[in-house]
Amino acid sequence: MRMQKCGKHLHSILNSIYNPTHTHTHTHTQTFPAHKIFKILGNAGFLGVSKPVEFGGLGLDFSYSVAVAEELGNIRCGGIPMAIGVQSDMATPALARFGSDQLKKEFLLPSILGDKVACLGVSEVGAGSDVSSIMTKAVRKGDEYVINGGKMWTTNGTQADWMCLLANTSDGPPHKNKSLICLPMNLPGVHIARKIDKMGMWSSDTAEVFFDDVHVPCKNVIGQEGLGFTYQMLQFQEERLWAVANVLTTMDSIIQETIGYTRQRKIFKQPVLYHQTVHFRLAELQTEVELLRSLLYRATAMYIKGNDVTKLASMAKLKAGRLARELSDSCLQFWGGMGYTSDVLVSRFYRDSRLISIGAGADEVMLGIICKYMDTLPKK
Amino acid sequence: MRMQKCGKHLHSILNSIYNPTHTHTHTHTQTFPAHKIFKILGNAGFLGVSKPVEFGGLGLDFSYSVAVAEELGNIRCGGIPMAIGVQSDMATPALARFGSDQLKKEFLLPSILGDKVACLGVSEVGAGSDVSSIMTKAVRKGDEYVINGGKMWTTNGTQADWMCLLANTSDGPPHKNKSLICLPMNLPGVHIARKIDKMGMWSSDTAEVFFDDVHVPCKNVIGQEGLGFTYQMLQFQEERLWAVANVLTTMDSIIQETIGYTRQRKIFKQPVLYHQTVHFRLAELQTEVELLRSLLYRATAMYIKGNDVTKLASMAKLKAGRLARELSDSCLQFWGGMGYTSDVLVSRFYRDSRLISIGAGADEVMLGIICKYMDTLPKK
Amino acid sequence: MRMQKCGKHLHSILNSIYNPTHTHTHTHTQTFPAHKIFKILGNAGFLGVSKPVEFGGLGLDFSYSVAVAEELGNIRCGGIPMAIGVQSDMATPALARFGSDQLKKEFLLPSILGDKVACLGVSEVGAGSDVSSIMTKAVRKGDEYVINGGKMWTTNGTQADWMCLLANTSDGPPHKNKSLICLPMNLPGVHIARKIDKMGMWSSDTAEVFFDDVHVPCKNVIGQEGLGFTYQMLQFQEERLWAVANVLTTMDSIIQETIGYTRQRKIFKQPVLYHQTVHFRLAELQTEVELLRSLLYRATAMYIKGNDVTKLASMAKLKAGRLARELSDSCLQFWGGMGYTSDVLVSRFYRDSRLISIGAGADEVMLGIICKYMDTLPKK
Amino acid sequence: MRMQKCGKHLHSILNSIYNPTHTHTHTHTQTFPAHKIFKILGNAGFLGVSKPVEFGGLGLDFSYSVAVAEELGNIRCGGIPMAIGVQSDMATPALARFGSDQLKKEFLLPSILGDKVACLGVSEVGAGSDVSSIMTKAVRKGDEYVINGGKMWTTNGTQADWMCLLANTSDGPPHKNKSLICLPMNLPGVHIARKIDKMGMWSSDTAEVFFDDVHVPCKNVIGQEGLGFTYQMLQFQEERLWAVANVLTTMDSIIQETIGYTRQRKIFKQPVLYHQTVHFRLAELQTEVELLRSLLYRATAMYIKGNDVTKLASMAKLKAGRLARELSDSCLQFWGGMGYTSDVLVSRFYRDSRLISIGAGADEVMLGIICKYMDTLPKK
Repeated sequence: MRMQKCGKHLHSILNSIYNPTHTHTHTHTQTFPAHKIFKILGNAGFLGVSKPVEFGGLGLDFSYSVAVAEELGNIRCGGIPMAIGVQSDMATPALARFGSDQLKKEFLLPSILGDKVACLGVSEVGAGSDVSSIMTKAVRKGDEYVINGGKMWTTNGTQADWMCLLANTSDGPPHKNKSLICLPMNLPGVHIARKIDKMGMWSSDTAEVFFDDVHVPCKNVIGQEGLGFTYQMLQFQEERLWAVANVLTTMDSIIQETIGYTRQRKIFKQPVLYHQTVHFRLAELQTEVELLRSLLYRATAMYIKGNDVTKLASMAKLKAGRLARELSDSCLQFWGGMGYTSDVLVSRFYRDSRLISIGAGADEVMLGIICKYMDTLPKK
Repeated sequence: MRMQKCGKHLHSILNSIYNPTHTHTHTHTQTFPAHKIFKILGNAGFLGVSKPVEFGGLGLDFSYSVAVAEELGNIRCGGIPMAIGVQSDMATPALARFGSDQLKKEFLLPSILGDKVACLGVSEVGAGSDVSSIMTKAVRKGDEYVINGGKMWTTNGTQADWMCLLANTSDGPPHKNKSLICLPMNLPGVHIARKIDKMGMWSSDTAEVFFDDVHVPCKNVIGQEGLGFTYQMLQFQEERLWAVANVLTTMDSIIQETIGYTRQRKIFKQPVLYHQTVHFRLAELQTEVELLRSLLYRATAMYIKGNDVTKLASMAKLKAGRLARELSDSCLQFWGGMGYTSDVLVSRFYRDSRLISIGAGADEVMLGIICKYMDTLPKK
Repeated sequence: MRMQKCGKHLHSILNSIYNPTHTHTHTHTQTFPAHKIFKILGNAGFLGVSKPVEFGGLGLDFSYSVAVAEELGNIRCGGIPMAIGVQSDMATPALARFGSDQLKKEFLLPSILGDKVACLGVSEVGAGSDVSSIMTKAVRKGDEYVINGGKMWTTNGTQADWMCLLANTSDGPPHKNKSLICLPMNLPGVHIARKIDKMGMWSSDTAEVFFDDVHVPCKNVIGQEGLGFTYQMLQFQEERLWAVANVLTTMDSIIQETIGYTRQRKIFKQPVLYHQTVHFRLAELQTEVELLRSLLYRATAMYIKGNDVTKLASMAKLKAGRLARELSDSCLQFWGGMGYTSDVLVSRFYRDSRLISIGAGADEVMLGIICKYMDTLPKK
Repeated sequence: MRMQKCGKHLHSILNSIYNPTHTHTHTHTQTFPAHKIFKILGNAGFLGVSKPVEFGGLGLDFSYSVAVAEELGNIRCGGIPMAIGVQSDMATPALARFGSDQLKKEFLLPSILGDKVACLGVSEVGAGSDVSSIMTKAVRKGDEYVINGGKMWTTNGTQADWMCLLANTSDGPPHKNKSLICLPMNLPGVHIARKIDKMGMWSSDTAEVFFDDVHVPCKNVIGQEGLGFTYQMLQFQEERLWAVANVLTTMDSIIQETIGYTRQRKIFKQPVLYHQTVHFRLAELQTEVELLRSLLYRATAMYIKGNDVTKLASMAKLKAGRLARELSDSCLQFWGGMGYTSDVLVSRFYRDSRLISIGAGADEVMLGIICKYMDTLPKK
């Protein structure tokens, strides 16, 4: 009930700020005004639905975040929802769960209110999916860390006010030497090297960031030093469920728009839709979408009861990436030449959704996690 | 809680009556002693878990039938569970829901107790998946029907005491001229033509049955004359959910046995399992199994709340048939030559499970149903 | 021998005119200097290798065109080779085979020499793959045709000097009322409506063209009036074989570059390439490439002996389109985040090659042709 | 010309000895009279078409063996052609190429004439696809070898007069310590342990064989001692090409019979064939068959010119196994319930053809070989 109300409110906000023209513009300028948009969403409470009330959140359970992610899937591009998701459910869960009150007041509260833009600094040039092998170092000097290294593929990176940074804070074993640190992006030594030219997700800026002797207070570490890898793995659960929920709505839309287009478009004297290979194929795709939705709901229900759903969330993320590729490819085909123009959602989704199988842990990383839970990995 | 107890009880019964030797024997004799087995199961209450208490059932909701179907998936062949499912959840739901008390007393009660074996007479030589085009006629003469025609692919057909028969009781439009009739199999004019030699499901007998002027009282019609097609479509929902639940357990077993076998079997100096294509492939298959399980649970939860789940049940049935083929084929490969012998479960499942995409409405029929619900079928 | 020499010569020409920078530039400006490039290629003889010597061609058989198409596949984008192929093997075969000497002198000769740029006018807004349903009309008035209508998806359309136009020249049955006409693009009434914004093939311009009472002499018709549909179907054989040959080379390159990249790129302490799923997948893809190459060579050998290879050419085109999608998607995955940037060939190919399954007869049209040859289409 | 004549002759012989009743009988008795059948084929020259004339062969090139393999594909089961292929092209190529004249006279000549039945002893219980790890030992004592160990999956094993045995003749490195030995099967110490109960290929007997101090003269070694592994790898080229050729014909037949059946079988008021998903799917499958045929011909043409075609032959074998599974599964679906009976070719082929991806080097072994030629395997 409350969830439905939320949904409707968000829907009308999104309609006001995101008609197709905006989306189109942001796609072509390859950025979007994060501060402006986040403030609107923050005012309405949508950047912290499952975050604690004392720091500006709505204090609801994670199923509400899933509902918001689904609603955001109605924005007609992949980049803007992703940017919002980074703010609300990817860069902030660990801070909300393990951060000190002071840190939460400084970074979480303004992020939830939409006053500060957050980004997540995990991937590096030599360490994308293999998180444990990052090289960025935060060396303790007195009560400061001195940070050197760099991050790659940083969503919101050119506009962010702070980064949830994963860095090596000691030389120990790779799963126990890392920490998450709240890093203001305006510190001396933080360089935005370039905006990366991507195949899709054009409306979202993706940066390469370098750290050159950046000094940050040690109290900016989230939770316990050395537990960063573990925190990030936990944080990934929400990131993955969020991503799945978000893309599900887009997949529904693509199927519906394809039905609509092929119903009015004729070939060989009858609507394209009426060809059996077309409506059967769409039925197969909708079946796969329902399978994925069912898994998402099952995993979310288990998660809000306190279970570790890393295995199911990884399965959902794996399937979401693969299904998005398959669905966008199959539907695009039914649009014929129109599908190959840049004007239609299916064409944008074809480019945007290809990222899902790569980012937030590539398909192969998901498979590795699933294998770990199935206990089928080679013993050393 | 109660469901878990049920499960354990059934598990121990199944163990006592179905060790691998029995299964193997029945597979090779291509039949199994239905009356003996059904009596044991009936005594324990497992043939009517979601049937009314006044006719011998346990009066539980359909999720308990799903739980029993899952447990039955532990029997090491496809034919015996299918035979049980026909008795408990395929030939009897319409009777339980729409039949007169007299009919239920005569046919449902003894079926639930395990005293009578039931079969379902829908498919015909010229009408398998296309149920509306059956030719068997039941012509009313006084207060009797005179039945002529025949049925094909009848599971339990050579041993059954009665058949839930779908026949044309008028010449009206094909979706409104059919009725379901309880037909004792020992009536004059009922001929069992032959046991069909199948690729798999060997332990289950499959008959061709002919009707030559068979007289049956009109009061044997289930519910209202002319609504047989509708009743059968409703009945199919439970049949399909049951079939999905049943095969899910077998798929879990196949994956686990494949893990076990490949862990101890070495090739090129290391366990087969440790080759990345093997453990990654098994992770992909387990992912698909979890997707299907999630859909089954979601559809079942909706069904027991009174919703029409025809679309979701058809999606689940479609996926179950396709996944069973894919999974058995992929796992068999990892067994090498052993997989090609008749001794291993994966090999039997390869032959048995091929039926799922054909029986109870072929994949193409499921796609047609899904399309109907998506409103994408050609308008005439 | 001669073919090898050809190949080397073309290779060095291409190297001189097409280093990666050029390709990159043309990709980003979304056009390329057709007249300049075609003149270079025309001077060297590569625009008419299998065209008659008396009109500037080399008079070789079609296997040499296939060899040139393979060599052109080395250009690091899809758009430029496609533009060249339109000139050499898509817009000109019918003219070369059925056109009058006068027409050949006026249009074929300068196209082979590289002095005129050709385009092919078949597809329309309401008739892409379904060629028989085009609406453009050429109405005979005295010894002129008056042309009204429009063409869509016209490669080279904004730069072309003439179009090989398919138009309805009578009201007869759709397979017998069409003609191919050589249409100068500078005639009054020819309007280039817009350059279409495409998902890929950026370096090639694609136009929408309108005809508003365009007058053209009747002697500009190729061969016999009314046989245009038949000629175009014949012409499609060469177009399809050319397209297959061209994309084969690119697919080889993508595999090789992926091997090179993944060999030096490490993940989880070893080269990406050394993960079994990576090198096994590349082996599967190379297998499919060799299958396609074998079919191309078999069809080409049959074609130069005078056989109708419509069925085999359609099969090859179908497979080429599908394999290009599969291969680019699979290889891109192994590049991780790098694959999602615009800088790498695999990313460009991912966007460019998606066109193959759509243009020159979509996959579904290929399937229809194959079915026609298998005699499996429904009889009316 | 000569090849066509050959084909017709063989065709009429096969018709006389192999009407469907025979095939059916042999399938159900799970053996066939090898000596009787081989004598008929031997008299007609079909067991040694590419073998030297001086030992009873026809002295033709290997393309004739391919033609014969294609013709044998018309036998309506997989087991009998396989048994013939073992005799003509799997157990004898190394002997014909590297054996001494004395050995050829004793074993090759009578095999070609059809007087002796041959089998190939490579696979073992612990070493199927991984040939290098076989354990059977042949220890030299004076001028005899004393053989101990055993072989598994031996086609023709219960009826064979001699075996082409691969055994370790020294303790050297696994690729250099093996030899091929002509082993009479009636020697003391050769035990046929059991006939293996298989999922398919029922008409062919498959044995497990044990060697218990079997004495055989050292002169029975083929070619040079220690080169057995190399010889077997060479011999595999012909085995694989033969298997591909053989299954191609069966795949053609399955498609044609499926077209025939679905054309006359109606569902939803029209022939099954006329449903678009049916005729389009058959067109896709025929496309894949033509791709495979093209690769077979290309590889054969290269092979008879003296090239090493291990890579292409392995690709063809890989594709043949996978396509056979896909094609039999897809076609079976279109037969509905009939496809699940044992009476139809498609059902037999579904069980028989599953062996192709397992025997003669499993798919994964083919992938390993292809990777070796692509130089993508991990360096130790």
